[in-house]
Amino acid sequence: MKVSCESAYQRVQPADLVGKTAVVIDLLRASSTIITALSNGCDRIIPAEDPNEAVEIARSAEGKTLICGEVAAEKVRGFDLGNSPLEYTHNVVDEKVVILATTNGAAAIKHFFNVDHVLVAALINASAAAQKIVEIGQDCVLVCAGTDGQFSMDDIIAAGCIIDRLQRLNVPLELTDLCEVALRMYRSAQGNMREALTGCKHFEFLLGLRLFDDLEYCLREDTHTVVPVLRECIVRL
Amino acid sequence: MKVSCESAYQRVQPADLVGKTAVVIDLLRASSTIITALSNGCDRIIPAEDPNEAVEIARSAEGKTLICGEVAAEKVRGFDLGNSPLEYTHNVVDEKVVILATTNGAAAIKHFFNVDHVLVAALINASAAAQKIVEIGQDCVLVCAGTDGQFSMDDIIAAGCIIDRLQRLNVPLELTDLCEVALRMYRSAQGNMREALTGCKHFEFLLGLRLFDDLEYCLREDTHTVVPVLRECIVRL
Repeated sequence: MKVSCESAYQRVQPADLVGKTAVVIDLLRASSTIITALSNGCDRIIPAEDPNEAVEIARSAEGKTLICGEVAAEKVRGFDLGNSPLEYTHNVVDEKVVILATTNGAAAIKHFFNVDHVLVAALINASAAAQKIVEIGQDCVLVCAGTDGQFSMDDIIAAGCIIDRLQRLNVPLELTDLCEVALRMYRSAQGNMREALTGCKHFEFLLGLRLFDDLEYCLREDTHTVVPVLRECIVRL
Repeated sequence: MKVSCESAYQRVQPADLVGKTAVVIDLLRASSTIITALSNGCDRIIPAEDPNEAVEIARSAEGKTLICGEVAAEKVRGFDLGNSPLEYTHNVVDEKVVILATTNGAAAIKHFFNVDHVLVAALINASAAAQKIVEIGQDCVLVCAGTDGQFSMDDIIAAGCIIDRLQRLNVPLELTDLCEVALRMYRSAQGNMREALTGCKHFEFLLGLRLFDDLEYCLREDTHTVVPVLRECIVRL
């Protein structure tokens, strides 16, 4: 299986993904939030490019909706929830439709709305994501959401974790140079993920906002077994 | 000083480099070859996008010219020299004008022909390049040539070496995430660069061509003190 990695979703054209599985990674925090919400009973998630689009979608969405999302990591005023996975508890999201606008992750997922196989992954579901990639059996592109179109170390380390889990499944892998780098970054980060992320701009930005609980949560590995799938503009299990 | 890094030259628009110093890195092998040639008395180097353009330039170039370059790492048939730095000895290149067409490096340099400050760097002149960057005093973009537009681990490690040398000069640096990754890749490679490059596609391609001497040469650090500069489509000291 050929595995490649891209450092920002804007660098991947959906047309390049024919016959491949795309795995969207926005470790801090959209991927982690989506996995958590669906794990906690949320019926489906509709990604939106920005808060205005989220409001627009909510007008026509069926079912009990929650309008959620962030701008500059803060909950949008008037929205039901922000982008902290810890908000998406069973009580809050069970059977709900979540409309989610986040700067990088939700926009990244939306970018691939017409691709056949799009998964959502993070550290918390790395092993499950690897298993699903192997089940689908296609070559795979690990698409880091990135931060505003730039290389973001947190996403790269999460990509490295998924490659590590793919290797554990004993599937012969053909890795690009960036995959090799991601794998090494992950392996050297193991055991002390927080220290490894020193110097990562987005991590330090969230630290500055004192989102300690969110960060601790997102940096755990394999706490979840679900793998969200995008189909027809909707993310669900 | 703000330092950023790009993994392929195609990702940098010359217009984005106003007021910045661009440092073009094609470790294996164009940067190493250019540094070597100018260090050995070559008068100037004219980068060409491809062999045809090199021939075109040679028709009108003044001085004693050598037409040089590679396609798929092999010397172009009928050209004077290929892209091995070891060919560019004093005897061969002294006072000569080298017209150089290489797949990634020469094309990368040419891409920035109208940028004010463009330097050429590799491992063999890393400390000198860092010194020059600091002398110019502008923010700096380390532009990896990349391999066919893709992230190439060899160039990233060389970028990391230059960042390491900038840090030694005690200049306060503001590093992007990719710079942090490059620095860590370099530091973990120190002492065993060849092993660190296992899995690097371009390195392994050249290994497959048995270019052992070239690789050994290009992986040495700080053996040269010259820093080639691009000005008006010409690279010289």
